[in-house]
Order: sequence, then C-alpha cells, then structure tokens
Amino acid sequence: MTNPFADRDVISTLDFTKEEIEYLLDVAVKMEDIAKYGSKILANKILGSIFLEPSTRTRLSFDAAMKHLGGQVIGFADWDKSSIKKGETLSDTFRVVENYADVLVIRSEWEGAAKYAAEILNIPVINAGSGAQEHPTQSFLDLMTIRQERGKLDGLTIGVCGDLMYGRTVHSLLPLLMNYDVKLVLISPSQLHIRKEDKVMLETRNVQFTEVESLESVLPSLDVLYMTRMQRERFRSEEEYLRMKGFYVLTKNVLKNGKPDLLIMHPLPRINEIDPDVDKLPQAVYFKQPKYGLLLRIALLALIFDAL
Amino acid sequence: MTNPFADRDVISTLDFTKEEIEYLLDVAVKMEDIAKYGSKILANKILGSIFLEPSTRTRLSFDAAMKHLGGQVIGFADWDKSSIKKGETLSDTFRVVENYADVLVIRSEWEGAAKYAAEILNIPVINAGSGAQEHPTQSFLDLMTIRQERGKLDGLTIGVCGDLMYGRTVHSLLPLLMNYDVKLVLISPSQLHIRKEDKVMLETRNVQFTEVESLESVLPSLDVLYMTRMQRERFRSEEEYLRMKGFYVLTKNVLKNGKPDLLIMHPLPRINEIDPDVDKLPQAVYFKQPKYGLLLRIALLALIFDAL
Amino acid sequence: MTNPFADRDVISTLDFTKEEIEYLLDVAVKMEDIAKYGSKILANKILGSIFLEPSTRTRLSFDAAMKHLGGQVIGFADWDKSSIKKGETLSDTFRVVENYADVLVIRSEWEGAAKYAAEILNIPVINAGSGAQEHPTQSFLDLMTIRQERGKLDGLTIGVCGDLMYGRTVHSLLPLLMNYDVKLVLISPSQLHIRKEDKVMLETRNVQFTEVESLESVLPSLDVLYMTRMQRERFRSEEEYLRMKGFYVLTKNVLKNGKPDLLIMHPLPRINEIDPDVDKLPQAVYFKQPKYGLLLRIALLALIFDAL
Repeated sequence: MTNPFADRDVISTLDFTKEEIEYLLDVAVKMEDIAKYGSKILANKILGSIFLEPSTRTRLSFDAAMKHLGGQVIGFADWDKSSIKKGETLSDTFRVVENYADVLVIRSEWEGAAKYAAEILNIPVINAGSGAQEHPTQSFLDLMTIRQERGKLDGLTIGVCGDLMYGRTVHSLLPLLMNYDVKLVLISPSQLHIRKEDKVMLETRNVQFTEVESLESVLPSLDVLYMTRMQRERFRSEEEYLRMKGFYVLTKNVLKNGKPDLLIMHPLPRINEIDPDVDKLPQAVYFKQPKYGLLLRIALLALIFDAL
Repeated sequence: MTNPFADRDVISTLDFTKEEIEYLLDVAVKMEDIAKYGSKILANKILGSIFLEPSTRTRLSFDAAMKHLGGQVIGFADWDKSSIKKGETLSDTFRVVENYADVLVIRSEWEGAAKYAAEILNIPVINAGSGAQEHPTQSFLDLMTIRQERGKLDGLTIGVCGDLMYGRTVHSLLPLLMNYDVKLVLISPSQLHIRKEDKVMLETRNVQFTEVESLESVLPSLDVLYMTRMQRERFRSEEEYLRMKGFYVLTKNVLKNGKPDLLIMHPLPRINEIDPDVDKLPQAVYFKQPKYGLLLRIALLALIFDAL
Repeated sequence: MTNPFADRDVISTLDFTKEEIEYLLDVAVKMEDIAKYGSKILANKILGSIFLEPSTRTRLSFDAAMKHLGGQVIGFADWDKSSIKKGETLSDTFRVVENYADVLVIRSEWEGAAKYAAEILNIPVINAGSGAQEHPTQSFLDLMTIRQERGKLDGLTIGVCGDLMYGRTVHSLLPLLMNYDVKLVLISPSQLHIRKEDKVMLETRNVQFTEVESLESVLPSLDVLYMTRMQRERFRSEEEYLRMKGFYVLTKNVLKNGKPDLLIMHPLPRINEIDPDVDKLPQAVYFKQPKYGLLLRIALLALIFDAL
C-alpha cells in the first residue's frame, strides 16, 4: 500500500478507511527507536501549533513528536496574547501562520475550525480537537492501545462510559471501532446518550450496540472499558454539570465484578470518574495511552511529510 | 558595501539610510532557499523573544526565521507569568535575559522600551513594536512588498489610509517612503491625521503629500493603497473607537474606481476595513506580506550576526 | 569522584554533600565554551518544563541551558491553558508529561510538588522552586557566585537580609553555607526571622550566626551581603506586605559604611530593596548571578544525563 497520509489533512476519523488506519498503526509501533533516540527525518520542517482551548497531552505530544523527528515547532497556546485578541478572525490568523509553517495543528472550541483551515490552506492541517465534535489523533491512539494491549479488535465487547454526548473522543472513536467485529456497550446517563447522528451511523453499519445507564450491570461482559469525564466546559449550566459529576466512579471494588483482564482506558484528563487506587492495576492502561499517542503522532507527522 | 547590520540594533526606521535598507532588501530576496530548506547558519545562537503586547505575525515570524537559520528561541509572550508580575522592572528583566540570549526581540506598549534596552545591553536589540511609535521590521517588509510586487518605488502614488495617528506601522513606514520619488496621499478622519512631527518630517524632506478624508475621491489616482486598522487599544475611550471603526471599508465595489493593478496592502490584523471578498483579487497582497516578512527577518538576523 | 548527579533528582539542597556540590561547581566553571558555542551533548533529549508560578530567570535559563547542550524543550508556563484548568490533578499531569520528556523541571506554589513528582516518576525531576520551601539550583548558583567572586567560602562573614521567613532562596542557601567555616548574620524584621527548623539546623551544625534587625549596625562586618525581596505572594495580607516593603533599602550612601570589596548579591527579582544607583558598583554582582546560573544549569543537566 502506498502511504495514504502523504500531504493529507487529518480532520475526522470518518475520512479514513480501515486499511489506511491500520497502515498508520503499523508504522506507529515501529517508532519506538525514534521516540527514544531521536532522528533528523523532519529537519528543517516547522510545525505550527495553534491551541485555542486548554491542552496538556495533545499539545505537548505533538511538540515532542515533531522534535523527536528533528523538526521545529512554533505557535501559541496563550491565545489571549495573539492578534485574535485584537479582533483578527481565525481565518486570517490561519492564512498568516501558513507562511511560517509546513503543517498546522489546530485545537479550537469552534467545531468547524480545523476543517475550515484545511479548506483554505495549502499546507496539511491536523485537527487536535474541535469543540464537542472530533479528536481524530486521540481516537487513533485509543485504537492502537486496544490493538497493542489485547492483540486484536475482532470479538471484543467494548464499553464506552460517561459523557457520550459532549465527549469528542467518543464521537471520533466510534467510526474507528465500527470497522471491526466488536460489540459496543454505550453506558451513560439518559441525558448524555450518544448523539442521534452517531446512532444512525452505527445502525447503518449494522454495529451491535446497546445503550444502558448502569455500569455495574454490564461490567461483567466487558473486555474493554473506556471511561470519559463529564465535559464540564460543554454543559449548558454549572448545575447540570454538578448533577452529572460523580454519576460514574470506577473503584477497585466495582471492578471486582469485571473480567480479570478487563482493559481500563481513559483519554484523560480524569476528574473523579476513576479512583486513584485503580491506577496500580496492571490492566489500567490510561497512563500508557499517552506513550502510544506519542508513537502515533510521530508516525502521523512522518507520513504526512512522506519522510519514512 | 560592507554589511551595515552587523551587531546593530534595529530600533527605528529613521536610523537607516536608503542604501542600508536596499542592502537589506537585496539580501532578503535571496533567502527563499533558507525559508524552504533551512540552514545551520545560526546554529548555537539563541534569540530572546520578549513580547509584552499581543502578537501573532511578528512573534511567530521571528521564531520561524531563527529556526530556519538553525538557531534556537527562548522567551515569553505570556508576560503575566514572568517576574514582571512580581514587580520586576523591564530594565532588570532585560539585563537578566541578556545572559541567556545572543539577540533580543522586544515588543512593548512602552514607547521607549526597545530603545532603552538597546542602550543598556551589550547584545543587539530589535524593536518588534513599541507602543504607537515604531515597528521597523514591519515597515521594511512593507517596502519590500511594494518593490517586489511593482518592481520599483519611484514614480508611484501611494495612499496610506486609516488610523494615521496611532498606527505605528505608518509612523515607521513614512521615513522609508520619503527616500523615494513618491507622491503620498494620507487618507484619514480629521481626528486621526498623522502626527505633527511626521508632517514636519515630510515637509523638511520636500515629500509631496496631501491629506484627505475621502478614500473614494483619491482612489483613482493611487498605485498602492496601504490600509490600516483603527488601533482600538490606543484610543482614549471605547466610544471614540466605535465612532471610528467602519469609517473606511474597502469593498470590491469601491475598488471599481481604482486602477486595475492597484496594489492593496495591509499590515494585518485587519478587523473590518477590508471586505473578505477583496482577498481573492490578484492585487490584494496582504496575505503575501507575511511571507516577505519571513524572508526579511531571516535576512536581518543573518546580517546582524554577520553570518552570510 | 564518580559523577554523583547521574540520573538523580534535585529536590532540596539538604540532599547533597559538600563534596557533591563542589563537584557540580567544578564542572560548572568549565561550561563557558558550551554557553558560548553550543554543543550536541544532549541531542535528542527533551526537557519538560512545567512552571505553575511566574518565572523569568529560572525558566529561561533552564531553557537556554538545554538548548546550548543541543537538547529540546517542551512544557508550559501558562498553566491556565493546560488540562489543570479542566480539573486534572498535578499528579496526573506529571505522569502524562513523563511520557514525552527525559527530565522534568517543576515550579509550583505547592511545597511538596517537585518532591512528590520525583517519587512517582521514573525520570529525574529538578525542583525549580516549591512555594516558600526550596529553590536548590538558585542556591547552587549563589554559592558558585561567592566562590568565583571571592575565591573561597571559608572565613567569610555573610549577611543575609530581608524576608528570611518566606524566601525560599534563603531556606535553600543555608544548608549549603553551613558546609563552610562562615559566620552568618541574619538580618530581618522580627516578624520575618528565619523559621524555627532553620534555626535548629544551624544550631545542630554549630554554625556561628546572629539575628539582628538593623542592617546599618552590622554592615561594616560583612564580606558578602545577600539581599532578598519581601515575598509579596506569600504574605497573609497585602497590609502586612506594605508594612514590610521598604524596610531595607540598600543605597550607595548606606554602603559607605561597608567594606570596599563587600560583595552585593540578590537572587532577583528585586523590587525596591536595592537602589538602581548601586547597580554600577563593581562589587554589585546580582546581574552576574544569572550568568553563573546558566553555567550551573548547563552543568547540572549534562551531569544528570551523565553526558560529559
């Protein structure tokens, strides 16, 4: 297969076929040495990093990935100190930064921001999170985590739990999972069910899924449990958020009813939905996910520049 | 001509002769390859970047320029998180950063900040915008844009439109333009005329200029139109700003009365003074200006270190 | 002596023996060439820089030090724009960043933050200031300054003046000074005496020290005067701070009663406790301290990676 990521935008997981995603994951697992010893693969290339919402993981791992590849990074995470503060439109800002960078990584609360940037710019654009909509590289690394930790996807029963309405990582993950023969168990308060369009998508693709509110009742059936936080910043009111916060709290006690090798994942940041006691369990892999994320982003950047 | 920029401060456009500026522009046009493929010219050099006012273009293009030259960048754009927050004077901050950097780029709302830094420090200082006063590298790139896009300066009629009182790019551009045989048309509301000292300067140098309020009336005569935004942050009150905002709005319709090859420029950010429809016109070069700015700053840094 | 800093955390000055500190200082003085010409010693290494309190000197000098060594830097100083803003714990943030970096530099107002990070992480952690508690690299460079400027420590009478209660640089410096045959004169308002545990420590080690309020009265006896600022951000109330601010102001006039070669130091930032007129005196070395700090941090990073 020819590199399908060369000079390509990465806006939505829906834009990629199963073969393309597996191609990416196959490359990602080979990036260990570059993560460890560095390289000069992208020497003289500059990544423009524009983060208009808070971020730790995504911003720093793109930053580290680019530097491991020998490239450089410019940009801003302190948007109050950019010309956006003077009233400049995002569109104008993007067109300006295009002159200084070879690839652009964008996070924004506006759902279409990265997509719009991809349309108007001549350099590749990577969506690093667009409002409640998409977070494709997070979902690639989530898929990679399951594949590496369990050795396969087919045949697994995967629980996705928490804020399924506002959580962009869930919205981006579903299109990837439906490429496989998996059973999905969607666990959420009734007010935070997955969105209608996600439901239609799953039905159209004949994915087996159930929607439930009780985590305890389905826990024994799960091979993977993907926890998510309540997306405080997307709720309409603080009251609504406070009602929902604490709806699910995964403890060692709760986990007693789960399979012994139940894989426990979380895109992070977690607030209180996983008790810190759970961290030490060997199947709790949420602090390994960022490492997979680094390998994934090294691979993605190298492939976009067709530099491997 | 020997490199006149070696180890030199860049504070005001008034400090440079026509010959020196043309020397810089001649070097800048040759920087295309470095902007594209990078270099190691300034390996092991560190640029200190101190931005105490919002910036996108200037900060990121100095950052990119230094990295294309193989150098490194340190500094801050989030001044609230520096020791200035603890009450440290700018002067002390500058003297400290001098120890970590080989050249300093400073933006500040205080008009004399960069000039003062240049006086007390032993490393070269570049003014990246000092209040309403000066922004020399912006003006160098503006001049470069006209020269590259029109092939010459002499004989042109150049309109400068908008907030001519508070706009530092205009204040810095005038001393450059008066080196050439140009006619200047200064278009502004009467409250935002160029400052008295600028007027005296133009008269002393026998520059042909007129001051008008109506853009439409003079548009047909112009070869270049340099639009600027109302400098909201410099106005004395929000009311005054709101009265002035929208005073000039350049649309495709307005442009029908202009010469077909009228060059349309803007230092950016623009707010509403140029309609987005104008962006697609081939003579609208304001999104090409940042690219010239990158070349210009690559040249300037390389020359300051006398490294070409 | 084998490099005692290889793969080591740097949390408190109390963790290091006299021999270890002198080993570090001996290496630091040899780093001049690297500070001037750069190196590739730490190529492919990444420093994670997490600053949760304002900083200029410490952050930028670690940044510059790492880049002089050929390494890269990622991190944040704008903590409002990190996932901490979304409610992530510091502990989770540290565990994530561990995946992207080879060494972590942490500043935090929480006194145990760096120590805790060192306990839970598998990469070396450097404390870049923890609340009112510790700032070990500042104290190493302070010791280096005295040693380089006076040629020795033994036999000196060293005055430490200002906010001895909340100032973390003092708290970190005392354990270093007590390794030598020095006399300490602790000059502070009675409300801002050194803490009880510091006093006990000095007594246990039989260090000669006196506590006084009047700077003038002891000035003639001093070989070194280490001034500190009132730690506004640590005071319980603004009123208390305002009462104390201005308690000590070192002027040229005051200094007339001091020895002619009295070494004047300050960790910076200074507010008003040293008059700017004093800056020009040859024995005022507080603007040389940041340069020693750069050498010190270059040495420390190189030694932690055992790369010399």
